[in-house]
Amino acid sequence: MRDVSIIGIGQVPIGDRWDKPIYFLAVEAMLAAIQDSHAERIDSVHIGNMLSSTLAGQDLLAGLATDQVGLRGVEATKIEAACSSGGAAFREAYLGVASGQVDFALVCGVEKMTDHPGEEITAGLVSASDADWESAQGDTFVAINAHLMQRYMYEYQVKHEDFAAFPINAHHNAMNNPYAMMHYELSREQFNQARMIADPINLLDCSPVCDGAAAIVLAPADIARRFTDFPVRVRASAIATDSLALHDRHNLLGLEAVALSASKAFEQARLRREDSGLFEARDAFSITAVLGLEACGFAERGHGWHMGRDGDISLGGRLPIGTMGGLKARGHPVGATGIYQIVEATLQLRGLAGKNQVKDAEIAMTQNIGGSGSNVVTHVLERE
Amino acid sequence: MRDVSIIGIGQVPIGDRWDKPIYFLAVEAMLAAIQDSHAERIDSVHIGNMLSSTLAGQDLLAGLATDQVGLRGVEATKIEAACSSGGAAFREAYLGVASGQVDFALVCGVEKMTDHPGEEITAGLVSASDADWESAQGDTFVAINAHLMQRYMYEYQVKHEDFAAFPINAHHNAMNNPYAMMHYELSREQFNQARMIADPINLLDCSPVCDGAAAIVLAPADIARRFTDFPVRVRASAIATDSLALHDRHNLLGLEAVALSASKAFEQARLRREDSGLFEARDAFSITAVLGLEACGFAERGHGWHMGRDGDISLGGRLPIGTMGGLKARGHPVGATGIYQIVEATLQLRGLAGKNQVKDAEIAMTQNIGGSGSNVVTHVLERE
Repeated sequence: MRDVSIIGIGQVPIGDRWDKPIYFLAVEAMLAAIQDSHAERIDSVHIGNMLSSTLAGQDLLAGLATDQVGLRGVEATKIEAACSSGGAAFREAYLGVASGQVDFALVCGVEKMTDHPGEEITAGLVSASDADWESAQGDTFVAINAHLMQRYMYEYQVKHEDFAAFPINAHHNAMNNPYAMMHYELSREQFNQARMIADPINLLDCSPVCDGAAAIVLAPADIARRFTDFPVRVRASAIATDSLALHDRHNLLGLEAVALSASKAFEQARLRREDSGLFEARDAFSITAVLGLEACGFAERGHGWHMGRDGDISLGGRLPIGTMGGLKARGHPVGATGIYQIVEATLQLRGLAGKNQVKDAEIAMTQNIGGSGSNVVTHVLERE
Repeated sequence: MRDVSIIGIGQVPIGDRWDKPIYFLAVEAMLAAIQDSHAERIDSVHIGNMLSSTLAGQDLLAGLATDQVGLRGVEATKIEAACSSGGAAFREAYLGVASGQVDFALVCGVEKMTDHPGEEITAGLVSASDADWESAQGDTFVAINAHLMQRYMYEYQVKHEDFAAFPINAHHNAMNNPYAMMHYELSREQFNQARMIADPINLLDCSPVCDGAAAIVLAPADIARRFTDFPVRVRASAIATDSLALHDRHNLLGLEAVALSASKAFEQARLRREDSGLFEARDAFSITAVLGLEACGFAERGHGWHMGRDGDISLGGRLPIGTMGGLKARGHPVGATGIYQIVEATLQLRGLAGKNQVKDAEIAMTQNIGGSGSNVVTHVLERE
């Protein structure tokens, strides 16, 4: 199996992007990544996307974007794994290069959500839950995560305000990210007073509905330095799954697929998880960031929120998370998020994260989660 | 890069399968393939599916089916490439094993279309065209293919009745396939008198709306004989793309992605296309079978229909196509079709195709096409 490196990255500013159809957002990110990579050709294209079929009535998005970026003829495949579509697409691109059949793989995550009525977006997002057993009962996707937060607060006697550090950290980090959607500092008071969405999740627990695209070019590690001065090695790539429906889980708060995916990844990388200098985690809701840290083994059960309280997750802390704003404040264009996470981790490992640079970052972990912990894609990256 | 072999196959009878939700159809096929393979474990699952998000409101179908088949925890990813979803999923599974990171890969194609109103199915299928430039103008997917047939008949002075041999051959072959949907011989009169759908495509030019699932287990070639007496080697796997919209093509009837995908595949396999003893082709409409044969180089431009007239495509002919009924008569559960094609080619190469056995079949070609020739997945298989 060949070693694989990231040789190019690209991203577009996240927000309400009514200026372009979905495939043009992808094209914008793909062109930026190709230019950054200096690759002489592209052999395969993978697109991670969740909602194009339902919201835009557009299947075959991978072929469409590939044609529009000027790569007509090239292999193109779309991956759908709900909010983990981007990370799952990255893995397929990686396996193509690792196999030896593909040399230059382009992968793009893209989503366009804002130019649709709210009820269509809500219906689209809840398709990441079990259609027969959850959404059919009237649960929205926020409501499903609210069950988790409610249970966590009950089980460990935690108050809602104890989660404040997570969105506050995300908004702070997004201030220096020109691609982020949210450019304002968040106060504890604002968080506590935000309007309720699905009790106990309030507006500022939630990542925003938005549009965006990010892209990456991969190449065999042994030739990566021909194309970039900053190659980043893919040390591990792992997916693990759980039931879609919460009621089918062995342990409601355990997020077993998160634990399994992280274990598989660090085993592949032959590293300890403590070696990771930063963690692009899944803070789609405050509660999911906390549960993710616990399931990955960075905190004991019921203690994940301490990492916010104690400053462990901030840029100078023990394990910085969401270093460029995370899902909460960079924005969460669902199928694109997994690629944004890897682009940001790459910026950190290149030493080019500007004011948000994590000192001496050599190893980074990214974790892209689909559903309520149903599909979990973990990557471990290393500065070469 | 490791060589890869097929060690197990499974399929479910195609038809109106209102007895089971979509993921149970997948489970039925997956269990059959696992049992046939005698694999001791499964390391990854890929699901090819087009319409689950839009028709069933179910994303993350791969994780759901993986959980329901009893493989909770295992890597699971869904591929969407419209009608070529199955073939594209097979390729990703293949690359996982080829890379060396995955040993036993399970891939399943599944679709459930019949339990929805006709207008929803029509809207779902047309999402394989260009949403902004084709479906937005009112074209259905049949209408888009009718443009091709109309142009072909005009360009080469061919009559509609000249296409009759294709559906007649398909129905004849389906008679001996217990998994096929259509179990009646088709007469030339029936074909000529069928009601019009989108001029000049009539009902019997069209493959049927239906439900189905098929699955395959892949393993490294060097250990395949531990699990089966009939391993089938994957000699080539290639995807090529074209524009989605017909008006963007360089040559309307050329199907350039079909030609490119076939060339790439036979180059990889180091075989000539004439070496192929049979061809599981894309006869979603009579016209697409004809155009496919021409683009692949089996017939000259404008002469593809001769292969029907002259009996070349029948079981004893020069290049049997649709040996178990093809899309027309086996049925075309869109995202599942690419896997059915490979399952049937495997049966032929195992020498287990019963009354439809192609004599001395050693090499088989399958071609799974998405959109109006936009995404083309070609595989070349060989009896070991």
